[in-house]
Amino acid sequence: MLVVMQAGATQDQVNRVINAIVALQLTPHPLPGATRTAIGITGNTGAVDSRRLEVLDGVKECIRVTKPFKLASREMHPADTVISLPQGTIGSGHFTLIAGPCSVENEAQIEQTAEFLLANGVKYLRAGAFKPRTSPYSFQGMGLEGLEIFKRVRAKTGIGVVSELMDTEHAAAVEDAVDIIQIGARNMQNFSLLKRVGKTRKPVLLKRGLSATLEELLMAAEYIMAGGNYQVILCERGVRTFSDHSRNTLDLSVIPPAKNLCHLPIFVDPSHGTGKRNYVPPMALASLAAGADGLLIEVHPTPDQAASDGAQSLDFPSFQKLIDSLKALSKPLGKTIN
Amino acid sequence: MLVVMQAGATQDQVNRVINAIVALQLTPHPLPGATRTAIGITGNTGAVDSRRLEVLDGVKECIRVTKPFKLASREMHPADTVISLPQGTIGSGHFTLIAGPCSVENEAQIEQTAEFLLANGVKYLRAGAFKPRTSPYSFQGMGLEGLEIFKRVRAKTGIGVVSELMDTEHAAAVEDAVDIIQIGARNMQNFSLLKRVGKTRKPVLLKRGLSATLEELLMAAEYIMAGGNYQVILCERGVRTFSDHSRNTLDLSVIPPAKNLCHLPIFVDPSHGTGKRNYVPPMALASLAAGADGLLIEVHPTPDQAASDGAQSLDFPSFQKLIDSLKALSKPLGKTIN
Amino acid sequence: MLVVMQAGATQDQVNRVINAIVALQLTPHPLPGATRTAIGITGNTGAVDSRRLEVLDGVKECIRVTKPFKLASREMHPADTVISLPQGTIGSGHFTLIAGPCSVENEAQIEQTAEFLLANGVKYLRAGAFKPRTSPYSFQGMGLEGLEIFKRVRAKTGIGVVSELMDTEHAAAVEDAVDIIQIGARNMQNFSLLKRVGKTRKPVLLKRGLSATLEELLMAAEYIMAGGNYQVILCERGVRTFSDHSRNTLDLSVIPPAKNLCHLPIFVDPSHGTGKRNYVPPMALASLAAGADGLLIEVHPTPDQAASDGAQSLDFPSFQKLIDSLKALSKPLGKTIN
Amino acid sequence: MLVVMQAGATQDQVNRVINAIVALQLTPHPLPGATRTAIGITGNTGAVDSRRLEVLDGVKECIRVTKPFKLASREMHPADTVISLPQGTIGSGHFTLIAGPCSVENEAQIEQTAEFLLANGVKYLRAGAFKPRTSPYSFQGMGLEGLEIFKRVRAKTGIGVVSELMDTEHAAAVEDAVDIIQIGARNMQNFSLLKRVGKTRKPVLLKRGLSATLEELLMAAEYIMAGGNYQVILCERGVRTFSDHSRNTLDLSVIPPAKNLCHLPIFVDPSHGTGKRNYVPPMALASLAAGADGLLIEVHPTPDQAASDGAQSLDFPSFQKLIDSLKALSKPLGKTIN
Repeated sequence: MLVVMQAGATQDQVNRVINAIVALQLTPHPLPGATRTAIGITGNTGAVDSRRLEVLDGVKECIRVTKPFKLASREMHPADTVISLPQGTIGSGHFTLIAGPCSVENEAQIEQTAEFLLANGVKYLRAGAFKPRTSPYSFQGMGLEGLEIFKRVRAKTGIGVVSELMDTEHAAAVEDAVDIIQIGARNMQNFSLLKRVGKTRKPVLLKRGLSATLEELLMAAEYIMAGGNYQVILCERGVRTFSDHSRNTLDLSVIPPAKNLCHLPIFVDPSHGTGKRNYVPPMALASLAAGADGLLIEVHPTPDQAASDGAQSLDFPSFQKLIDSLKALSKPLGKTIN
Repeated sequence: MLVVMQAGATQDQVNRVINAIVALQLTPHPLPGATRTAIGITGNTGAVDSRRLEVLDGVKECIRVTKPFKLASREMHPADTVISLPQGTIGSGHFTLIAGPCSVENEAQIEQTAEFLLANGVKYLRAGAFKPRTSPYSFQGMGLEGLEIFKRVRAKTGIGVVSELMDTEHAAAVEDAVDIIQIGARNMQNFSLLKRVGKTRKPVLLKRGLSATLEELLMAAEYIMAGGNYQVILCERGVRTFSDHSRNTLDLSVIPPAKNLCHLPIFVDPSHGTGKRNYVPPMALASLAAGADGLLIEVHPTPDQAASDGAQSLDFPSFQKLIDSLKALSKPLGKTIN
Repeated sequence: MLVVMQAGATQDQVNRVINAIVALQLTPHPLPGATRTAIGITGNTGAVDSRRLEVLDGVKECIRVTKPFKLASREMHPADTVISLPQGTIGSGHFTLIAGPCSVENEAQIEQTAEFLLANGVKYLRAGAFKPRTSPYSFQGMGLEGLEIFKRVRAKTGIGVVSELMDTEHAAAVEDAVDIIQIGARNMQNFSLLKRVGKTRKPVLLKRGLSATLEELLMAAEYIMAGGNYQVILCERGVRTFSDHSRNTLDLSVIPPAKNLCHLPIFVDPSHGTGKRNYVPPMALASLAAGADGLLIEVHPTPDQAASDGAQSLDFPSFQKLIDSLKALSKPLGKTIN
Repeated sequence: MLVVMQAGATQDQVNRVINAIVALQLTPHPLPGATRTAIGITGNTGAVDSRRLEVLDGVKECIRVTKPFKLASREMHPADTVISLPQGTIGSGHFTLIAGPCSVENEAQIEQTAEFLLANGVKYLRAGAFKPRTSPYSFQGMGLEGLEIFKRVRAKTGIGVVSELMDTEHAAAVEDAVDIIQIGARNMQNFSLLKRVGKTRKPVLLKRGLSATLEELLMAAEYIMAGGNYQVILCERGVRTFSDHSRNTLDLSVIPPAKNLCHLPIFVDPSHGTGKRNYVPPMALASLAAGADGLLIEVHPTPDQAASDGAQSLDFPSFQKLIDSLKALSKPLGKTIN
């Protein structure tokens, strides 16, 4: 951390800041300059609220130098995290597709989708049993009945299932029914929920919040990892900006810095990111080209009859066409689609 | 809802949209124009996902006309909601102060603050027992022990207590210990939690999410009200934008439209909104002038020793000075400070 | 400036950074820490692009400590700037109203408005002769003919005129016809225009750009001041965010930090900030309470017939009512309305 | 346009709105519903300010149905615009590279870069003679001297030159010296400048403003086209959001809707979009995959010595490597790199 004094700060004010730093059990390094003094701080500054120094007389601002995440940091863990599941490896040169309908609607729909996916080489099915909906009057998902459908379809087909957990009450039930637990964007900073999934032994797919910075996303991953669960997959799904041409602003430019700062795999959800099925294939291809490790993508047997989010779902033929395009593109990029 | 056809849409395409509308049990009203056709829809369009029509051939876009909130809407409930508690009325010409430290740190701190507040005419104390912190390594609050402190200080002093509930597990315990339950900004769309507080009989102070639109805030209130709890207080606490001169962008301009669309009281939290104590008093005065019904404000006996957010807390003398300024300003505005 | 090295940076990499700093004619101050080295830099760092050091091997990031504005900075010029014009002083405890229609439409309209304003104690009229419009098919203003109207109405009534300059071609003509030159939000970083008005001797009202940070606004003021014109008035008029309840997000929270960092007066335009006349009076009162030095406000004899922006214009009786409210509020705040 | 009345609006209020629509020479179509009336409007609504109706008693809101751009609209002009210049075609299956340094620094630098580019199959050089800089104290570009360098290098090597025009004074000089005139992001709504380049006969590369919606970008293109110059190239270069991991948020998701709404070619500038050279190649590949028609990219013989923006410039070997990757990727996408 660096404390920058005001141009006219007195030596007395500088001394008081130095004493405050010492009182926090940190080491001050005064750095006099032509027009002002700055004071470098070394020691474990991670837990210090910089604003405690900022309010002292004569202080202009405090600048934090070290990042507060540790377990998620590539500096601490240089090699990429690879997640090995029976259905297929995530990370390490694989580009993994997770596809399926927004919501579980009935067993036939899930079974039909699972068989279609497996026939096309896709090993993971996504579908929501518990649905976070903006309106209390919208369809809220099939709940526990949906989880039973997952269990039967997994047992029958062997497909991996990814589904959202919305609260701690249902954590054990969801953990039991799925292969990867999804934490939705609106719960990215539901810290009680993050702590709870830190205690599961299933991988967690963590969606970036609508207005989360990359650092906040990595801190949310840190919550899960601090609980002992190191199998975290980040997922970009669009952020909220002034821009109104799509449902959200899909921020593909987060991929290179996420790869630079952090060793966890990162996926992209172009369906929520754009909100319109026509825009999904180009953004899916762009995600692959930008360096993502996989996609979370909405596919529905009959999108126009979907219980939710049909407008952003691909039908089966469109998704097959997209898989073909992804395969063609993956070769020059040195990736394997799975 | 209004469906706008593309300029070159065929009569066949128009007919297919009309049939789809009828299939949704709604009434279509074709509206031919010079260059294109639009189709008005009447009936209960609230639950329809407009994108289901948008994906039909020849459709340019769908435009939603009616708002999806009902119980929170001033159209449905023209008179202001007034919340009557023994400590003092909220709404209806009162400007209510809720003040106190960011976190409960110990019983002496809470008791000292309660006595200071009551001596200065302030009837509600705020303090966090459960703290949502960005880092898993930061102080997470005193938890249940903090709630016991609230009970003793309420019994002894009669002050009203406002405190945050972070998860459904602790709902009964928090409901028992406080007078107003706070839902934090990061949980504004934690729908499981909203449903749970819809079943309590304590008023709920609902903070606007960091990137929530006014409509989403009102839909979150609708979740609580749909559960049977009509005592909801909205709270603006700053939104996230590109702007970097303050911790968040305090959006006072939400107050007039919130008053226009909705009958619930609206408070402002200038402490989180600005993040710096020097900026709190001018924004507190501006909140009163803009038409807010009260403030949630951080006050600490010794801000520089606070366990969290000390830099945005006022000390006692500064808060007394602010109360005086608010009183002077309230007269020409026809409000009463309580 | 501070250069932060990566945790594993070698001594060689540190030395290469030190040499690069010396090559830039600056002084390096190495600051070794427990896990990494940081290098403080003193000297005139204002003109250095920090990214030149950031790309060197082993560098994690560069952090700029000193702000790049000088003439606009309160550190350099602690006393408030006061602008003295024959019509009335701006700054120094005055709260100045600048009111009038969005566009000059004809001479009668301007004369009628000027007389109404003067009769109500308002000394400055605003109106656009050149109009920046999003669409090339919208009314673009009366242009030079509008300037002639200003000259005649100023001569006849003595009112001060504030009007926008959109390009350097018309700089001399606008300077000749008005008392204060307005630079619009969309031109806040039109650097050719800023340099040009730096050479005039009329005060400049500089509107904050739709996505300008406070620092960028102050740098735009710095462009004007660097040309020799120190009479700059800042103006907040709403920024662009995800928030959709108003035309723009009026950022009143910029006022306290602007006052803290800079000595120039700051105005607020609640008409463009909200876009709806019903929301203008509460935001005007809030601007006064937040510490602004004045308002730019749209008033029109017959708003429903206005050539542009009628929906955000107050009619005469509403504006008189607002003046009364502002006067009542100004007393406890220790300001004088002029 | 659609006028939505309030739920309790009276028949009188509806009639007054109908009369106001007729007075605007448009045709009203009342559309009674279960809870409220809406009034469709047909006729040339493009030039009407919807807020003129919105302020009438009983009106809830006005909803604009038709887009205000015409010449830029794909509805009016279904085929893609192709720009044919001697150096190479833009659009129509070509993916065109425009590369070079941020600023002209001297003739040797430009000549060396031009020869390098031509040797690698790149036909267009970009470099700034006039530089928009946030600080008045930063290097402002070589100006007219830079234009002379362009003329000599063009004559000698045959390369096409793309350079920014910042003001109307230099329009003729820039038009004379370059092959494509660039309008920078900060001038996207400098309407005087847009009108001026509408009169040139050189193609215009129009960068999206930092907070411009897609509609505003297309309206800016419309300004140029309304002046008679139909050769406009759109360019995404990053928008401003809360996100802080890169210099700007490169919004690749604008490409599919831009292609859907508009027939003009669209380029991407990943150098300004990311601000860091390491992040440029993945975002360049993603731009190609997302459907862009070309790139504007910063390349410098010695980036670490660049006069401006060196940190986001690629050196020659990195750029050659990127060209190879783009070529490999272009084949499965059916595009030709030029």
